[in-house]
Amino acid sequence: MRNASRIVTDSGSLDSRSARVIDVDHLPVLARGCAVMGAGGGGDSLIGVLMAREAILRHGPVPLVDLDDLPDDDLVMPCGLVGAPTVAIEKLESGEEGVRLAEEVQTLLGRPVAAIMPFEIGGSNGVIPLTWAARLGLPYVDADGMGRAFPLMPQMTMNLAGVSSSPCLLSDERLNTLVLRTGSVQWTERLLRSTVAAFGGAGVAALYLMDVKTARRATVRGSVSKALKIGSVIMRGDVDPVQAIVTELRAQELMRGKVVEVERATAGGFVRGTVLIEDQHDATRLLRLEIQNENLAALEDGQVRACVPDIITVLDAASGGVLVTERLRYGQRVSVIAFPVDPIWRTPEGLAVAGPGAFGYDFEHSEIGATDAGD
Amino acid sequence: MRNASRIVTDSGSLDSRSARVIDVDHLPVLARGCAVMGAGGGGDSLIGVLMAREAILRHGPVPLVDLDDLPDDDLVMPCGLVGAPTVAIEKLESGEEGVRLAEEVQTLLGRPVAAIMPFEIGGSNGVIPLTWAARLGLPYVDADGMGRAFPLMPQMTMNLAGVSSSPCLLSDERLNTLVLRTGSVQWTERLLRSTVAAFGGAGVAALYLMDVKTARRATVRGSVSKALKIGSVIMRGDVDPVQAIVTELRAQELMRGKVVEVERATAGGFVRGTVLIEDQHDATRLLRLEIQNENLAALEDGQVRACVPDIITVLDAASGGVLVTERLRYGQRVSVIAFPVDPIWRTPEGLAVAGPGAFGYDFEHSEIGATDAGD
Repeated sequence: MRNASRIVTDSGSLDSRSARVIDVDHLPVLARGCAVMGAGGGGDSLIGVLMAREAILRHGPVPLVDLDDLPDDDLVMPCGLVGAPTVAIEKLESGEEGVRLAEEVQTLLGRPVAAIMPFEIGGSNGVIPLTWAARLGLPYVDADGMGRAFPLMPQMTMNLAGVSSSPCLLSDERLNTLVLRTGSVQWTERLLRSTVAAFGGAGVAALYLMDVKTARRATVRGSVSKALKIGSVIMRGDVDPVQAIVTELRAQELMRGKVVEVERATAGGFVRGTVLIEDQHDATRLLRLEIQNENLAALEDGQVRACVPDIITVLDAASGGVLVTERLRYGQRVSVIAFPVDPIWRTPEGLAVAGPGAFGYDFEHSEIGATDAGD
Repeated sequence: MRNASRIVTDSGSLDSRSARVIDVDHLPVLARGCAVMGAGGGGDSLIGVLMAREAILRHGPVPLVDLDDLPDDDLVMPCGLVGAPTVAIEKLESGEEGVRLAEEVQTLLGRPVAAIMPFEIGGSNGVIPLTWAARLGLPYVDADGMGRAFPLMPQMTMNLAGVSSSPCLLSDERLNTLVLRTGSVQWTERLLRSTVAAFGGAGVAALYLMDVKTARRATVRGSVSKALKIGSVIMRGDVDPVQAIVTELRAQELMRGKVVEVERATAGGFVRGTVLIEDQHDATRLLRLEIQNENLAALEDGQVRACVPDIITVLDAASGGVLVTERLRYGQRVSVIAFPVDPIWRTPEGLAVAGPGAFGYDFEHSEIGATDAGD
């Protein structure tokens, strides 16, 4: 393992702050944290755990490295699963796809991939690339391209930082491999979607290839550590795990209550819907969640209480476990929490690609808290 | 022009047998011949003429070479337009796409493309790649991968000969470029179609890259010369141009008469339909044409008179000009001719990918002539 000498290892501990190697015991912890950061999207992280577990058992633990600890010119490969998470549950990847993408990158660019980075920390994508890091014997970068989960390829910090989305590499479990070179990230998104549909609904992708020096300014730093931290709080076994998460994240609990209405439809490759939650103490209070794969906005009495790009996550009120959008059902006892996204998404450029307007809403983004929906 | 020394040039003549250079004057001749070989498909060859004309006027005539006159190890790039011909009429390519594909091939394989070959002689694709040959200063191979027009990528002689369809390169006028590597030609076909749909319905492709030695056994030889020959017969100005074509091709005139019924629908990216032609002398005789982009079968009284892979083409009875499937209309005076395809398509392997069964018909292929449809 070429960077092993620079890594302080502490493989036995579940304490996220010192976990500089990710071993099988860290996987459930990491997965729970990634689920919280997924804003209800990003797919079921259990798949990621199963894939990464097998690879780590066979190839050994994966060093977790900070970008500051890697040489400037080392090549970082941001990667993850693309397509519908609901498909990915049934169409399991072989685990070889990411290895093939790294080989293809080396052929294309004439230099080896030095580190693997999840392009999306939220949901299963914060865990799945560990599979490939383990197989390749490469470290896992403590950063990602979203700081949460978003549905589209332009919604990555690398795009905001001016890193090209080309070449974009795609693969599936049947050994099909594609290299896309496009004139814009919008064309990358379009051609990637059509290919993933032809794959059968899911595949793996690597894009925004960059050197470490660029990655330091173009990513959300420390997001893997953050997910591990959140996960360890959930697993600590507090009496009120929701409150523990709220405290840890300095989150706002928008409402605790019961799901009283779920409207959901799958169209154009996205899950869209509305969920109503009734306050547990005051049945006249209703919180409306607007969903497009992720939880995009929470409104009460026509006022926006939280919205993209900030993170809205629905937790099981008893266990603190995350309820992803496709698992919300009538009668569930839930807590809806909201917490701030990485500040890059609150810049004008960030809001342009991932603010409410980017998802078709006509209200402005506001810091978490009450504001008029009619703005 | 690297192969110029091996080419006997005779640029002034319209006589196809001696035309070893293709100049602008040859283009209308070639296009008419390609249309006849297109079996009603392959797109309007006028687009090809316009594109190739501009390139040849600017860059000079294109040498036409036989594979026997090229060195064994030279790299041949089979290429052409993919997607709906009806879209290609409105979505004109920039003319640069093929040049970009050749550059990409050189990068991928580490050696330059030595000659351009149309992967399909029928319709516009017999002419369009001349545009790229002219721009690249490369010779045009006197061969193709079909000997006619077919709708699918597996329906190429290179596939029958075991040449890999990977890498397959795709591009469009917006500078998007894709490299596909797949486990099978069926996956190449599927991913190519989805990409072309995302491009907006049309793009350019290069696949089945091979050396000259392989191309000699994996292609339909002499098909460009053959198209030039057919074209020159049409343009000779005979009183009965249909009869001249029939004589030249040793074709069978299945019926001469009037189009009395046209049923046509565009579905799944294909034009499907049925056309009825009433004999000019005997109104009780009806010929039924079955269409799927190309004319696939001609039936009379329930008997198959001709069918794929043999070539069925509808000519304007007066001019001898080809009526492609999308231009057939009620009331047209037409002649339906059929002539044998290259023998490779009559082998069991050829019939498996391009015989009646491959298009969903339950009758067996028969040599041109009458047989029971119920076989």
